[in-house]
Amino acid sequence: MAEKNYFLNRYTVRNYSDKHISDDLLQQIITEAEHAPNTGNMQWYSVVATRSKELRAKLAPAHFNQPSVMNCDVLLTFCVDIRRFEHWCHLRKAKPGYDNFQSFIAAMIDTCIFAQQVCTIAEMHGIGSCYLGTTTYNAHTISEVLELPERVVPVTTLTLGYPAAEGKPSWRLPVDAVLHSETYHDTCDADIERYYAELEALPESAKFIAENGKDTLAQVFTDVRYTRDAAEYFSTIYEEELARNGFIE
Amino acid sequence: MAEKNYFLNRYTVRNYSDKHISDDLLQQIITEAEHAPNTGNMQWYSVVATRSKELRAKLAPAHFNQPSVMNCDVLLTFCVDIRRFEHWCHLRKAKPGYDNFQSFIAAMIDTCIFAQQVCTIAEMHGIGSCYLGTTTYNAHTISEVLELPERVVPVTTLTLGYPAAEGKPSWRLPVDAVLHSETYHDTCDADIERYYAELEALPESAKFIAENGKDTLAQVFTDVRYTRDAAEYFSTIYEEELARNGFIE
Repeated sequence: MAEKNYFLNRYTVRNYSDKHISDDLLQQIITEAEHAPNTGNMQWYSVVATRSKELRAKLAPAHFNQPSVMNCDVLLTFCVDIRRFEHWCHLRKAKPGYDNFQSFIAAMIDTCIFAQQVCTIAEMHGIGSCYLGTTTYNAHTISEVLELPERVVPVTTLTLGYPAAEGKPSWRLPVDAVLHSETYHDTCDADIERYYAELEALPESAKFIAENGKDTLAQVFTDVRYTRDAAEYFSTIYEEELARNGFIE
Repeated sequence: MAEKNYFLNRYTVRNYSDKHISDDLLQQIITEAEHAPNTGNMQWYSVVATRSKELRAKLAPAHFNQPSVMNCDVLLTFCVDIRRFEHWCHLRKAKPGYDNFQSFIAAMIDTCIFAQQVCTIAEMHGIGSCYLGTTTYNAHTISEVLELPERVVPVTTLTLGYPAAEGKPSWRLPVDAVLHSETYHDTCDADIERYYAELEALPESAKFIAENGKDTLAQVFTDVRYTRDAAEYFSTIYEEELARNGFIE
């Protein structure tokens, strides 16, 4: 029997068993993930592994009390970290010029690449994971709780733990929706109809629409899940966080 | 004999053989990578696969003429793409509110996670890759050549091809430099000495210092490779690109 393709069949895990991820295994995963590509091998990132229930209870509101914050085995907060590199520069009579947006963006890309490598390696060890996009919403609270110093900014969070139950992969767009040949090919209305047909036909989509009293699934996104008001509010908060760390003015 | 750990032993490949990556394999890689986690399953990304030598010759200057742009088999430009989702919203009587910084950041995180999944899957097929951090430098030129419409912004590039030769993994920081327990632990001078000792002792580090006429390796970074002037200049350029696409003011 052919082995199931891991990448096609992976899924997000929000409910975890009591089984513990050892510190040795966690260290091994991070050590391996460090070999993911990064800009100029400067490794402008850090990861804070939080197991303490007390600290996680303080982080939970920043993550809108998503249950996986408390019920995971370990919570990993991935941060842009240019501080360590700057410290090295200062000790070596070099003048770093990384207090700007471009440096933040480079560090952010590397932080996400590193985080995804951790996610993949963990999953290949049978560990389930869930990203928390809320990390860039209330970044200042997370910074405070995790005692992040200047030039260290939270970007994303992974909750890790052994899965409480099996899951299955979720819907994705057809490949031709995201893969463009040679140059970008803009979509026409008929393309959009085809791209979203399968998603809109799912029973859970009808359920989401009904539960939220909306007419279309798209409205559940724009009016309930990812609203303009929230996006604009949290834009300001994250911009303040970047300014506080010297990455923007 | 135990199989070599893929993650610990991976390396960046900048020189490629003539062997071709088939369109079928490329599609398979992208299809699998789409199952990487993403925010709200909105898939706010696109990837443009450019094989045309003519188009790549136009992209090359934006990437500082790094040779892998021309000698790779296929060049993948990963873009934040909120356009497709907004199009769906408009067709479904929903009012998207994603013309802001927070939405860009969410899309950027997802784009990088997706790119890294492509990198890993390609490498597991024996394909070599190299990220081009220059993508966020001259993003406007890349946008023009690839005909990216509004709300589609280039974030990173992967050059793909079968390796011309074997390579070996490069130095990384000790795991305790990047992994923090419970909260962030700031580094003292002695930590920095230990973290960078192995790198500074490498023969190629001495070579870099000599070639560039500097006193320390850190100065090669700050004065030659990643200078303040360049970072500040390209900050402005990328901010203009985000403003042009409605993500910042």
